[in-house]
Amino acid sequence: MTEPSESGTTGSYVEPGSEYKRDTDYITTRITADGRDGYPVEAGRYRLIAARACPWANRTLIVRRLLGLEDALSLGLCGPTHDQRSWTFDLDPGGVDPVLGIPRLQDAYFERFPEYERGITVPAIVDVRTGQVVTNDYPQITLDFSTEWTAYHREGAPDLYPEALREEIDEVAGEVYRDVNNGVYRCGFAGSQEAYEESFDRLFARLDRLEERLSTRRYLVGDSITEADVRLFTTLARFDPVYHGHFKCNRNLLAAFPALWGYARDLFQTPGFGDTVDFVQIKQHYYIVHTDVNPTRIVPKGPDLTGWTTPHGREALGGRPFGDGTPPPPPRADETVPAGHSPLRP
Amino acid sequence: MTEPSESGTTGSYVEPGSEYKRDTDYITTRITADGRDGYPVEAGRYRLIAARACPWANRTLIVRRLLGLEDALSLGLCGPTHDQRSWTFDLDPGGVDPVLGIPRLQDAYFERFPEYERGITVPAIVDVRTGQVVTNDYPQITLDFSTEWTAYHREGAPDLYPEALREEIDEVAGEVYRDVNNGVYRCGFAGSQEAYEESFDRLFARLDRLEERLSTRRYLVGDSITEADVRLFTTLARFDPVYHGHFKCNRNLLAAFPALWGYARDLFQTPGFGDTVDFVQIKQHYYIVHTDVNPTRIVPKGPDLTGWTTPHGREALGGRPFGDGTPPPPPRADETVPAGHSPLRP
Repeated sequence: MTEPSESGTTGSYVEPGSEYKRDTDYITTRITADGRDGYPVEAGRYRLIAARACPWANRTLIVRRLLGLEDALSLGLCGPTHDQRSWTFDLDPGGVDPVLGIPRLQDAYFERFPEYERGITVPAIVDVRTGQVVTNDYPQITLDFSTEWTAYHREGAPDLYPEALREEIDEVAGEVYRDVNNGVYRCGFAGSQEAYEESFDRLFARLDRLEERLSTRRYLVGDSITEADVRLFTTLARFDPVYHGHFKCNRNLLAAFPALWGYARDLFQTPGFGDTVDFVQIKQHYYIVHTDVNPTRIVPKGPDLTGWTTPHGREALGGRPFGDGTPPPPPRADETVPAGHSPLRP
Repeated sequence: MTEPSESGTTGSYVEPGSEYKRDTDYITTRITADGRDGYPVEAGRYRLIAARACPWANRTLIVRRLLGLEDALSLGLCGPTHDQRSWTFDLDPGGVDPVLGIPRLQDAYFERFPEYERGITVPAIVDVRTGQVVTNDYPQITLDFSTEWTAYHREGAPDLYPEALREEIDEVAGEVYRDVNNGVYRCGFAGSQEAYEESFDRLFARLDRLEERLSTRRYLVGDSITEADVRLFTTLARFDPVYHGHFKCNRNLLAAFPALWGYARDLFQTPGFGDTVDFVQIKQHYYIVHTDVNPTRIVPKGPDLTGWTTPHGREALGGRPFGDGTPPPPPRADETVPAGHSPLRP
């Protein structure tokens, strides 16, 4: 749910003297199997709007791939550097989403709520027939992919949110959200030295605990990939390229945590994870959009990313990545990360 | 020769659209044994003004220590965060240098040149009797310590600029200056993506060559410490704490170069090098002063610096650190880096 600044000034993310507080008031309408909110799960009716740059949207790209929802739910991708108010379809021919026919994601928000004043965020799901946004409630979207869209799961889709493990997944994901997913933003957008240092300490204390947890188990919960892994992964993928420097999360690089670095590479090399990651767009997004953190808008040329494809040795911990399921096939041609944007696509 | 901004606006170091050009027009008066510029070498007559934060001034602190010039040449230290126009004596009681009796280094510049318009830089040497600055020509200052101040060298002082090696030292130091010492600034103050990337490539190409050179030899030139090592060291000490993040020199951390990292630790642990380094002041200087690169002025809590005191194994390459000389004794009590500001002073 990376979002344009709500202050009305491009690049105002840091409020001097304050800690960073994320606006978590989303559009909570749900797309469900029974359609109780007026939006039943239906193939071809909705369009997922994401941006590869955004860690919250990246979750939806991964879960959609793992579950094989590509044919049922189409995908529109915004470019990495939204403007003051809205993510835009600047990567599409003519700067217009080919299905929705709009240049800016805010058009879909306004179509449903003409006076919408909150952040225009990705991921969002749009009802193609009306052009109206249905939801931008990112933590619910991926859970609903797992539990409500089951009729359209591919053969061999993994169970990313198994009932018996939900309590533990929710608990781990809650800690990871507070200290890591959102914790890096609390470091980077801190308005005071004190707020920054407190977030820094919480972030690295949590990473130290995750390092310990992952040194004896291949995945966060159970012995297969779950929603909890998806949520941690999208932050880890951005750690060295962006959070270490731009957000000053620099006690050490990810590679200094042997278990976390092995875990991150293991997932990166698993079909459905790394093939959704576009490091070029990730770096462009943070370094160009947050002008109050990086006013020069210069995008670092580093770090060297070749390590992501090196052997991780995590198979020795056992585990069954997809449980009783199977890996997804390669990404569709029109949804492949461009060559040169990832060590998987050199 | 880190200097306050000359543009008249605090923190204006980046000129949009341009590459960074260092002003290298210094006061070239020299203090020599024969006094041909009117300033003969003389014990007690001059005061060296430095700042531990500044890599150019750090060179003078190291060479003065190695040669044992402390009794002949007193030392005044400016705080890490100079204001718009001048380095200040804000660390001293009352904010005034106890020998010169001035609050701002610019007072000594103006005493000699009332209309002085260039940068008020450290290191500078001031004639105590007149209160006038003599020189701020940092590359010459350390060479003159070695070659002109010989009458006051301590017993066992090393020869940092041996005649037989001067050509090679000058050549290596020239490449190191262009691509590394000044190269990191060219990355950090680049006014365009293109200028940044060109400097980045030159920096890391040079570091790769230095890595190769130092993988088979303990020091840059000959088999003992020379001026060339002093000049490379002060940039390496700042690499991970500042240049990697703040200046976007982030292909990799110093620790990713096994030879350079061993070399840097070897020197750091050599008396006269690491005991002049104040990591707290270094980070404060860059992150607080360069507001057009880091407008939040938040100082990163990382990186973890404990690695600097770990075994480096460089003794295996042979070499005689001080040649026919000996290591300097510990720093004077009043010139010791504060506890907590260095892994040598935990």
